[in-house]
Amino acid sequence: SGQKDAAKPSGRVFAPYAIFKGKAALSVEPVLPTFTEIDSGNRRIERRGSLMMTFMPSIGERKYDGAQKQLFSLSPTEVGSLISMGSKDSSEFFHDPSMKSSNAGQVRKTLSIKPHADGSGYFFSLSVVNNILNTNDRFVVPVTTAEFAVMKTAFSFALPHIMGWDRVIDQVGTGTQKTTSQ
Amino acid sequence: SGQKDAAKPSGRVFAPYAIFKGKAALSVEPVLPTFTEIDSGNRRIERRGSLMMTFMPSIGERKYDGAQKQLFSLSPTEVGSLISMGSKDSSEFFHDPSMKSSNAGQVRKTLSIKPHADGSGYFFSLSVVNNILNTNDRFVVPVTTAEFAVMKTAFSFALPHIMGWDRVIDQVGTGTQKTTSQ
Amino acid sequence: SGQKDAAKPSGRVFAPYAIFKGKAALSVEPVLPTFTEIDSGNRRIERRGSLMMTFMPSIGERKYDGAQKQLFSLSPTEVGSLISMGSKDSSEFFHDPSMKSSNAGQVRKTLSIKPHADGSGYFFSLSVVNNILNTNDRFVVPVTTAEFAVMKTAFSFALPHIMGWDRVIDQVGTGTQKTTSQ
Amino acid sequence: SGQKDAAKPSGRVFAPYAIFKGKAALSVEPVLPTFTEIDSGNRRIERRGSLMMTFMPSIGERKYDGAQKQLFSLSPTEVGSLISMGSKDSSEFFHDPSMKSSNAGQVRKTLSIKPHADGSGYFFSLSVVNNILNTNDRFVVPVTTAEFAVMKTAFSFALPHIMGWDRVIDQVGTGTQKTTSQ
Repeated sequence: SGQKDAAKPSGRVFAPYAIFKGKAALSVEPVLPTFTEIDSGNRRIERRGSLMMTFMPSIGERKYDGAQKQLFSLSPTEVGSLISMGSKDSSEFFHDPSMKSSNAGQVRKTLSIKPHADGSGYFFSLSVVNNILNTNDRFVVPVTTAEFAVMKTAFSFALPHIMGWDRVIDQVGTGTQKTTSQ
Repeated sequence: SGQKDAAKPSGRVFAPYAIFKGKAALSVEPVLPTFTEIDSGNRRIERRGSLMMTFMPSIGERKYDGAQKQLFSLSPTEVGSLISMGSKDSSEFFHDPSMKSSNAGQVRKTLSIKPHADGSGYFFSLSVVNNILNTNDRFVVPVTTAEFAVMKTAFSFALPHIMGWDRVIDQVGTGTQKTTSQ
Repeated sequence: SGQKDAAKPSGRVFAPYAIFKGKAALSVEPVLPTFTEIDSGNRRIERRGSLMMTFMPSIGERKYDGAQKQLFSLSPTEVGSLISMGSKDSSEFFHDPSMKSSNAGQVRKTLSIKPHADGSGYFFSLSVVNNILNTNDRFVVPVTTAEFAVMKTAFSFALPHIMGWDRVIDQVGTGTQKTTSQ
Repeated sequence: SGQKDAAKPSGRVFAPYAIFKGKAALSVEPVLPTFTEIDSGNRRIERRGSLMMTFMPSIGERKYDGAQKQLFSLSPTEVGSLISMGSKDSSEFFHDPSMKSSNAGQVRKTLSIKPHADGSGYFFSLSVVNNILNTNDRFVVPVTTAEFAVMKTAFSFALPHIMGWDRVIDQVGTGTQKTTSQ
């Protein structure tokens, strides 16, 4: 619909929340869900969105190497896990990017979130063991309480959007629909 | 208004939050309120929206039977009850889908939310006793803390929308309206 | 702008959150701020919005008398007070609707929110002492924890809107604006 | 796009949240991020937004001197720090508005937020030491719990917007995008 394209820029907008620390950088950005048309005018979510985390190693003062980056994509339920963490809680998430393919089990990604002993924040650690390339990458980024509060608030904001609920809700009410009691 | 239809797809969008467990699946989706025109250009909420829960029994590995589904519709106040639950709280809701009809009292639906003993989540149980069909259905879905956090956040997002407050707020301000002090 | 009128219904939408109890009913609804044009294309908030509470006495089973209603308008800061209340906290607000007029002090409105002894909710009491009409009205509505949770969530949603911050934020970014460090 | 300009007023909207106290006033307002076009149709955040705090000294009953105002701009992470403060926590932020220029170190701004001894709110203090003009300004504004709750809620609302995440999320879903598992 050209109407719609006129009202919103058709391109993508990039606005990662980035944390640059001594040994590595972490940046996070929402990835929107995709939808598929199921019948005339109606659509169904096809692939849920996520919060994509990108880790990059430091290669000098305030320099980070994008070529060595590793990604970790948080699902809605993993986002729920993160935003419900108290200041002494830990979380650990395991991903196999080749799950259900012939390479299943060859790459193991582990994201671990561990609280600082003094309650002043968390360590975000990503480990990527790749048995195909025979590599083993590890990134550790200390995240302060303030940075974690930004994540909690921004992730809570993004969650209904990566679930597609903003689309469910942004519909034209007809005022005539009738439903029975449940 | 063709303008509006052009800007938003006219059809519905489906994006349930679904939890698939061993014996049953639970999925939840917002249902929007309906409005009725009360006088020229003004509208009033007619029927409040809800969060519709669908339970389906498992009939094999990762297979669930939609034909045996049962629904339970959470009102705004029931949503308020759920989102204010602490990790050791329980809730119970009773519905009679035939309330105020000649079949009143013939079908009793009970949704109960009980915490796991170790605080790691809740059991969502739906019981449907139907004296007309002489059936008695019961579903139990364990919900983890992370999944419950997704519900709390997504339900809090949806609540003002099922109440119709997004419509109250999304109005053209005239800058000339005057009200007296209250 | 005809474009805007086409995209949004120009009339008002009414969707009060209403609680009907034995002796009185309480309903709440957001009132939007008004804006005034300060120079070409720029606008400034003129009057802040509020959350308007309406109390009505019961005059029979499930019947409430709109002719005897009394209003109490919560300012943004009073909303902040309400949404930060813990389950054992009390609040009290005093309003003089004739403040700064010749009738100042003649009408005193007091809204008091007191917790139930068992933590199961609050009593919302409105007292209106009117020395001009020589009347003294008092309403008490018990509000459950679930209903209070609906208010907290819906009031938190409404707060940025009654402050006008949704308008501040819903602006066309130019990508060229430069500001100095502060 | 003329379509967009028609749908939204092109000018700015001003709606500060202002707190007027005996010795000084504090007002806060969101400042939006700016974006830059990186390639055809795609844009990237250029400068993050902020919450701009303005302090003004009192110069008589309910009169404040705008000519003597001082600004302090809270970054997203500083906002995260503020919204995660408990009722007994303190925060302190240091800014050098001339950072990286030849005047670096000549002006030091310090915002300190300290809790009242009785837990009834916070003192917001801004100190500006300017070695170029040889001035030393200090403002103290007591902020009640209710006013702080307004800030927390309004800042949490504004945070995703000053980060630019509302733009990331407000995009036209194509329903055809494919991403690999991460």
